[in-house]
Amino acid sequence: MDQDLAFLRSEIDECDTELVAILAKRNRITEQVGKIKRSLGAPVYIPERESQLLAARRTQAELQGVSGDLIEDILRRMMRESYQNQQSELACVAPQLSPAVIVGGEGVMGQLFARQLKRSGIEVRILDKKQHCFASEILEGAKLVLVSVPINKVEEIIKGLPKLDDDCLLVDITSIKQQPVAAMLDAHSGPVLGLHPMFGPDIEHWVKQTIVVCHGRKNDKADLLLAQLKIWGAQLVEMAPKKHDEAMQIVQVMRHLTTFVYGQFLAKQTHSLQEIKDCSSPIYQLELMMVGRLFAQSPELYSDIMLAQFDNVESLLEDYKDIYQQTLVKLKNRDKAGLIAGFSDAKSYFSNSAESFLKQSRALLNKANDSKVLE
Amino acid sequence: MDQDLAFLRSEIDECDTELVAILAKRNRITEQVGKIKRSLGAPVYIPERESQLLAARRTQAELQGVSGDLIEDILRRMMRESYQNQQSELACVAPQLSPAVIVGGEGVMGQLFARQLKRSGIEVRILDKKQHCFASEILEGAKLVLVSVPINKVEEIIKGLPKLDDDCLLVDITSIKQQPVAAMLDAHSGPVLGLHPMFGPDIEHWVKQTIVVCHGRKNDKADLLLAQLKIWGAQLVEMAPKKHDEAMQIVQVMRHLTTFVYGQFLAKQTHSLQEIKDCSSPIYQLELMMVGRLFAQSPELYSDIMLAQFDNVESLLEDYKDIYQQTLVKLKNRDKAGLIAGFSDAKSYFSNSAESFLKQSRALLNKANDSKVLE
Repeated sequence: MDQDLAFLRSEIDECDTELVAILAKRNRITEQVGKIKRSLGAPVYIPERESQLLAARRTQAELQGVSGDLIEDILRRMMRESYQNQQSELACVAPQLSPAVIVGGEGVMGQLFARQLKRSGIEVRILDKKQHCFASEILEGAKLVLVSVPINKVEEIIKGLPKLDDDCLLVDITSIKQQPVAAMLDAHSGPVLGLHPMFGPDIEHWVKQTIVVCHGRKNDKADLLLAQLKIWGAQLVEMAPKKHDEAMQIVQVMRHLTTFVYGQFLAKQTHSLQEIKDCSSPIYQLELMMVGRLFAQSPELYSDIMLAQFDNVESLLEDYKDIYQQTLVKLKNRDKAGLIAGFSDAKSYFSNSAESFLKQSRALLNKANDSKVLE
Repeated sequence: MDQDLAFLRSEIDECDTELVAILAKRNRITEQVGKIKRSLGAPVYIPERESQLLAARRTQAELQGVSGDLIEDILRRMMRESYQNQQSELACVAPQLSPAVIVGGEGVMGQLFARQLKRSGIEVRILDKKQHCFASEILEGAKLVLVSVPINKVEEIIKGLPKLDDDCLLVDITSIKQQPVAAMLDAHSGPVLGLHPMFGPDIEHWVKQTIVVCHGRKNDKADLLLAQLKIWGAQLVEMAPKKHDEAMQIVQVMRHLTTFVYGQFLAKQTHSLQEIKDCSSPIYQLELMMVGRLFAQSPELYSDIMLAQFDNVESLLEDYKDIYQQTLVKLKNRDKAGLIAGFSDAKSYFSNSAESFLKQSRALLNKANDSKVLE
């Protein structure tokens, strides 16, 4: 029997060895695909191709008694690799934006944009503190100026820019949009565009990554940059600067605050993190992970971020506190009707998404369980 | 050029077709593995085999220019399928627990345990409301009685059990442990064990799923059941009932409350869920998902759960409110030192886990991005 098991295991190892070979072959093909897409001016991500490929393989799998979800999960993971393989050289649909200048090009986000523009064949010049004395030379003839600087410096830096050519596109990628866009419109008479990439500098590819777009002064040049972002696979969402800034406060500020409070609350308890983890279902473990990851940051840096964000949010903070307080009162009075009413409000807000959130989070929880390593 | 792309795509489709065939073959092999493990009395999950298999394939992949993380992610996903394939027939190391009676065996968790015991060849009898009149007959000669009933009924039902044989193991799976374990010790003079499975009825397999174990009255029979749980792949964590119950309050009650409050807070804002989503980085989207999933439940049922849980938690609720309030004051006074102190407390609580949480959540965020479907 032990021998039978050993034999079956060697058969599994053979399967998996074949799998490695397939992955190596697929890598070679997708690199070629990247090169051809570049010469065709085609985007990295083509939704129809992705969905057709998945549907065909699901059908095929199910005919052979293989779960459709299994093959889809694996193919999606392989597509991530494929999108990454296509990053080294990218199609360019906006040669008119060359040369581009990244103001703050030595920061991590500035580098990310610089790299991506270069991969698309656009000439990129860096203008950071070090190059300050040569600002006019660097900016001379620039067709795109992208400002990627800390939030507390952005207005000052935009105001301090030398006069740009009228056909130059001025763009910023700050996480707030009202002031930077207003400052750019004030400083420059040509096309102006505000972007907020909803991702950090460590992304492996740009496919399906969201970028919020706030139009400043529309123009063909701005459209060209947006077309280039789509070539990279980004998902663009247009929004008014004010709407964007309010949403950011609701999302970031409040989540920061409640996560920060909850982490401190846990630290005050007499239970160790391990004991808390042991008594957490997968969903609570995931929530614990979301809280804990915040505290991987530097206390100093994080406190600065919080202080910078907590202007003009008093009413949001009061809203949250009021609802917390009301909920406690309902619980104390065993006011079931009141709890149901509160729940129903939120339920209709989330409406159909609640079910899809449940489904998506289940998929993530399964993935989290797959990755567990026990002794 | 378009033809070249079409050709490469057909090559990708060929690769993926081979992949489907490998998965089908692997399914057939892992089913066989399950059968042999059953006859050997071997567990479904063998950590060393898993880690050896992964390490060997990573090395092989990297030699062929394939990312180790890619092959590991795919293999872990395939292992989930393999563990599922091995569920239909399971090894039995506790035949002495046959026949077993599941009190509340028509509930979803009761069914889950009944199914698993049967798969291991243990005779299972169901005792639920319908079978109430035949309780004595059903319990006659039972070697294991597992109580799986609603939390608010558990003490009453344990008290109401007919006298069990002295060699019968009495077990409950309630999500609180002090009262049920005390009630079982009171009602029964034989071996007693409290379990709390940290998972719901929809798990696909038991591998790596955590079960908290609270010993009541130790005995060989209890050890046998624990050995059987390990055969299924479960991870056992021993804990005192009081410690467990306190941890549950910290985890469940507080997370329920803050999530409930946050959902209502969002519903009060003038931004639609779509606008909030668009302005959320992947990590905030994940947090939004965790909040939203709560509201997939029935308002009525959820309010009942909250009311049942909110006894004796006043001091926790006050703790949380105090920290929230203190944080607001620090922010208002721009008390950076105070914020840093609070942050540092939580940081040392999470200590090394913060980094690993960051890494794990990144893996989940990548997975979430893979699964996005755009128009």
